[in-house]
Amino acid sequence: MTTGIVERIRTNRRELARLLTRIENGSASAEMAELYPHTGKAHIIGITGAPGTGKSSLVNALAQHYRQNNLTVGIVAVDPTSPFSGGAILGDRIRMRDRSGDSGVFIRSMATRGSLGGLARATSDVARALDAAGFDRVLIETVGAGQSEVDIARAAHTTLVVEAPGLGDDVQAIKAGILEIADILVVNKADRPGLEITLRALRAMLDLGHRAERIAQVKEMHHGQMMTVPAVSKAVPDENTAWQPPIAQTVSTEPRGIEELAGHIAAHRDYLQRTGLLVERERARIQNEILERVRDEVLSRLLSRIDEAQWRDLIARVQSRTLDPAGAAAVLLE
Amino acid sequence: MTTGIVERIRTNRRELARLLTRIENGSASAEMAELYPHTGKAHIIGITGAPGTGKSSLVNALAQHYRQNNLTVGIVAVDPTSPFSGGAILGDRIRMRDRSGDSGVFIRSMATRGSLGGLARATSDVARALDAAGFDRVLIETVGAGQSEVDIARAAHTTLVVEAPGLGDDVQAIKAGILEIADILVVNKADRPGLEITLRALRAMLDLGHRAERIAQVKEMHHGQMMTVPAVSKAVPDENTAWQPPIAQTVSTEPRGIEELAGHIAAHRDYLQRTGLLVERERARIQNEILERVRDEVLSRLLSRIDEAQWRDLIARVQSRTLDPAGAAAVLLE
Repeated sequence: MTTGIVERIRTNRRELARLLTRIENGSASAEMAELYPHTGKAHIIGITGAPGTGKSSLVNALAQHYRQNNLTVGIVAVDPTSPFSGGAILGDRIRMRDRSGDSGVFIRSMATRGSLGGLARATSDVARALDAAGFDRVLIETVGAGQSEVDIARAAHTTLVVEAPGLGDDVQAIKAGILEIADILVVNKADRPGLEITLRALRAMLDLGHRAERIAQVKEMHHGQMMTVPAVSKAVPDENTAWQPPIAQTVSTEPRGIEELAGHIAAHRDYLQRTGLLVERERARIQNEILERVRDEVLSRLLSRIDEAQWRDLIARVQSRTLDPAGAAAVLLE
Repeated sequence: MTTGIVERIRTNRRELARLLTRIENGSASAEMAELYPHTGKAHIIGITGAPGTGKSSLVNALAQHYRQNNLTVGIVAVDPTSPFSGGAILGDRIRMRDRSGDSGVFIRSMATRGSLGGLARATSDVARALDAAGFDRVLIETVGAGQSEVDIARAAHTTLVVEAPGLGDDVQAIKAGILEIADILVVNKADRPGLEITLRALRAMLDLGHRAERIAQVKEMHHGQMMTVPAVSKAVPDENTAWQPPIAQTVSTEPRGIEELAGHIAAHRDYLQRTGLLVERERARIQNEILERVRDEVLSRLLSRIDEAQWRDLIARVQSRTLDPAGAAAVLLE
């Protein structure tokens, strides 16, 4: 009898690394199905923020803190802005050096050009594999700003958005978009000048964000395709019990403020459990994932049935402007 | 007889604004089909870069330059990181003030949370509407870094990536990912200290980028779903004739270097026409758009047929981990 995948990745780091490579290559569906019953135990924490905020060193410090408390840590460092692995690999090696010899930490860096959808899916599956492999905390680190983090953060239970003082006068543009995914705000490099300005800006943004969120939700009702799905009941905690993102201050290089930050993370986890949001959010995540998989599969089946001559003809007609792209899609759908 | 949409948006700016609103709301498919035969004339120029590089003021200066040469200009300011319209609207007003009273310039700002796919599609359609409305140049301005720009840049013929000296020591992380979409690099704020360092870094990145591109292409062959599509012939210019992204230096606030930049933009357009790439890229764009539309439509048809009880049951089974998400997708696909 062969040993199951869960047993193998729990006892052998090389097997785990190989599985993660298969996940990245999209050839691990059998293994993912096998390990799925063993997931759901890890606390998955997303860490995002603009370049220059010291995210990597913060992740480093947080991992060390967890290790000192006898918790095992899996780290996924994702760089969606990197066409291939240059930056991510470098960061990986620097961090590796700090923690070499500790089998309670496992680090994987991921970077890809090509489809971001593929990267988000792979990241989520890698986090799931680390969960099944028995890591207590899984940290997903991504470079900040844009839809990429929002997608990748969806895989996390708790999302940290990292800022730093003095990064320029219109970092606000980034914050506005990214604040809505923040469960905890971290001002790293808190020993730098400009701390008070950053804190004030973040507090103002948090006030604004609460109003913005409501407007954005209404907007999404109109635009979001997911709304056509049979609705799953949504437990929204009321104003009084709603989570207010705390602002943590850290100096990850010393390190300073890491224990307090870990406290906020634990409190957020408690909050999710207490309010039932942990279950609700997982349900929403599962719903999205199933739909994405169905969509991808339907598309690839459809593509395999398209006649090449017809396809060329349609493109030629759209290019000569005798047909518009929506019209061409309608022809294919017939 | 009612006047056609093309006539109306060419003669009446309010009609144009109303059409763009319908595009954003996803309710302009009839109009888009009607105006499609009148598209394909404008040069669509994407301008992207990190916050702090002075993109907006560069777009401003470029628009003024085109106006002085009697060319009409449509501007689409997109902020994918903004949950709603705060920043974009503000920028809009500041720019509006500069060009008020000039009917040869039309500015539209777009911002959304929700699905980025929707934003990219809407941006592309807005650019198309401005094209049909007769604008000679359409400038699409987006906030930098991440997949968002890559998606939005796909709608452009020529993409400018804007940098600025002294933005911090790991802006390189952004550049690596964004360089591959750059047809022209612009170092704005070129009167600031650190210009030489930025120029040197960009030149080094350009060298590296050429190698990276080849590796990334090979990667995409394995990961990209689009590869399953019947192949459309690809005219790839050889090494000698390939476009080498120039590095332009500007001070948009003076303005300085704008005419040279416009020269690079015109040269890139000539290059695309001469090599046949203009036609090839449009073909690829059309291909992607048709497939995206087919996929979205297939999904929404499928969703409308899902039985609610079955859907709830599937989610419950995945949540209790007796079924994995891929398995649930397979059940739906049966």
